[in-house]
Parts: sequence; C-alpha cells; structure tokens
Amino acid sequence: MNTTPVPQRVAEGAFEDMLSADQFKAAFRNHPAGVAVVTADPGDGPVGLTATSVISVSANPPLLVFSLSAFSSAAPALARSETVVVHLLGAENVGLAKTFATSGIDRFADTESWSRLVTGEPVLAGASTWLRGRIVNRMEAGDSTVIAVQVLQAQIADAEETPDPLVYHNRTWHSLGEQSELAQPTRS
Amino acid sequence: MNTTPVPQRVAEGAFEDMLSADQFKAAFRNHPAGVAVVTADPGDGPVGLTATSVISVSANPPLLVFSLSAFSSAAPALARSETVVVHLLGAENVGLAKTFATSGIDRFADTESWSRLVTGEPVLAGASTWLRGRIVNRMEAGDSTVIAVQVLQAQIADAEETPDPLVYHNRTWHSLGEQSELAQPTRS
Repeated sequence: MNTTPVPQRVAEGAFEDMLSADQFKAAFRNHPAGVAVVTADPGDGPVGLTATSVISVSANPPLLVFSLSAFSSAAPALARSETVVVHLLGAENVGLAKTFATSGIDRFADTESWSRLVTGEPVLAGASTWLRGRIVNRMEAGDSTVIAVQVLQAQIADAEETPDPLVYHNRTWHSLGEQSELAQPTRS
Repeated sequence: MNTTPVPQRVAEGAFEDMLSADQFKAAFRNHPAGVAVVTADPGDGPVGLTATSVISVSANPPLLVFSLSAFSSAAPALARSETVVVHLLGAENVGLAKTFATSGIDRFADTESWSRLVTGEPVLAGASTWLRGRIVNRMEAGDSTVIAVQVLQAQIADAEETPDPLVYHNRTWHSLGEQSELAQPTRS
C-alpha cells in the first residue's frame, strides 16, 4: 500500500459534517471502560455519580481526568467543589455502580455504606481503592466538562486483596480475571 | 454513620502533599480500559500510538478525549496534526496494540496493514471500528496533554460482526465476552 506521505486535504465544509449522536454512541458501545464512583461535597451535602470516563493522564504530578455530563444531577455541586474522591470499583461493587447511576433517588440513603474523610469528602466503605484529589483544571467539551484532578491521597488495596475489577461494556457489567485473559499469542 | 454535611476543611499545605508516582500507578493498575490506536499525519509521515485513555465525553456534538504523554514518540507530530483517526480495538487486534506500543520500531513497516483515507490520515485495515475527527481543544495536564477530538466520520462494525473488545488491565491483555459477564445479581 501507499507509504508515500500524502498531504492532508480536508474538503471545505467537512468540519461541519459531524457524526450523528446515534452513530457516535454505537461506535463507543464497543469500547469498554473501568467503572468509578466520584463523590464530593461542596459544603451543602454529599453528591456522587458513576463514571466510566476516569483515566490516568500523568504520574508526575499524579493527575487523573473524568468527564462530567451537564445532565448529571451531581453536575451543579461538582461545579462548586474543590476536591473529589474517585473510587475505582471492583466486581463486588456493582451495587454501588448501579446506585450512583440511578436518577431520582437519594444515592446516600444507605448511611451504613459511606462515611467522611477528615477533609469532609464522602467515602464509600465498599470500595477498596480510592483517590482523593483537588480539581486543578476544567475543559468544556460539548455537553460535558472534562475535569482534571491532582491526586493528594489514596487508599490502595493490597495486591493480594485487590478485587477483580468491574468493567462496563455494551450496557452490560463484566469482570476481569483469569477467565477473560487472552492466551499468550505467538509473537507477530 | 454521619449524614450531617461537614464543611470541607483541607489542612494548610495539604495541596503540596501529592501522592507519589509509584502509588498513583499502583492504584490505576486496578482500573481497566479499552484499547485504541490513534494515528495521524501532519504532512510529513504517519505516526501512531496505542492509547488506553480514549473516552467518550459528549454525543452532541460528538466529542472524544484521549491523553498523550509528552514522552510518546508520536507527541511532536500529534502537536502539529489537525485531524486524527481513533481505532477502537478488538481482541483480534492485540498485535496492532503491541506494535503501536513498541518503542524504536517503524510502526508502519507492514505496508499491508494500513492505507490512507482520502483526507490523508493513516487507517489500520484490521480495526473494524474507527473514528476520524478534528482536534478542537487541548488541555495541559502534568507530563501529558488531554486532547479533545470532534468526530466527523466513522466506520462502525455491524452489531453481529463486532469483535470481542480488547481490554488492558494490570499489564495484561483481556477480552470481554460471555465468559466475563457478571451474573445478574439480585437487586441490592
């Protein structure tokens, strides 16, 4: 095939020819993601949401990013929050993932399931790994905001006690373990 | 547990107490991700890299985000690129994922494995789903740049022909399918 560099030529007006929302969603149905619950409290009560958009972007300084939809019930409170706690969920936490993805309920109604850090943020007892951080940047992106968090503190499960992680894919919950591991392929 | 909102109080100086890079990496080892290859050509040759940071952030307009390390060999060319192609990989593409994550090789040496869109960007023949888009925003984040892409065009595999997706977790490649699906839990 052609290996000669060809200058990029984008047809005039092509920048307006966006993909439809339905096609975009269909493409991403095939892109799995780890599952997190982000919590915060700007001072007037706890908020939280399930997020499948948490990514690690920099180790030094330690920065993660997540995407917050303007339609999320937690969006107004997160816009006023300076700090958040990001819980990375295991398969055993699928109940938390569902609770924090459900609209119209009090996601903190089960008062046995959470407490507060000394710094005030809500923390979920069931999550073995969480990171507390300060929001350091925000980027508007269509109907969402991409939020950058500098991590200050974390609870990390021991390697032996780390639960199998929870994965969301094509509207279904999955878990990773030996049963999902790819056989070592021959070198290609 | 305490449900009374407690005002956030962050100790003076706590903002400097960042998590160490090693601890941060250990925490994210438990956070799986779908796998993509991002390609571009600013006009002087194709570049590409494997990314486990591609997230969907907005459906209307269709926007995705990925994180680009300053240490990636593709970083200088991507800084000059206006458009990219994001390939969402299936388990059958693990060879591509490895090739585009390997340093010091010509990642486009196999000229049978890729071609060019009429707009000039390199496209990988083996990937059944890809999205072409224009870079619309960049956010500096430590040693990386978070890049926002507005999607203009896509190739999406038919639902029946969609391969099982590739997942990266704890330095291992996984695939999702019926074997990884969580049993429908009782409502909690």
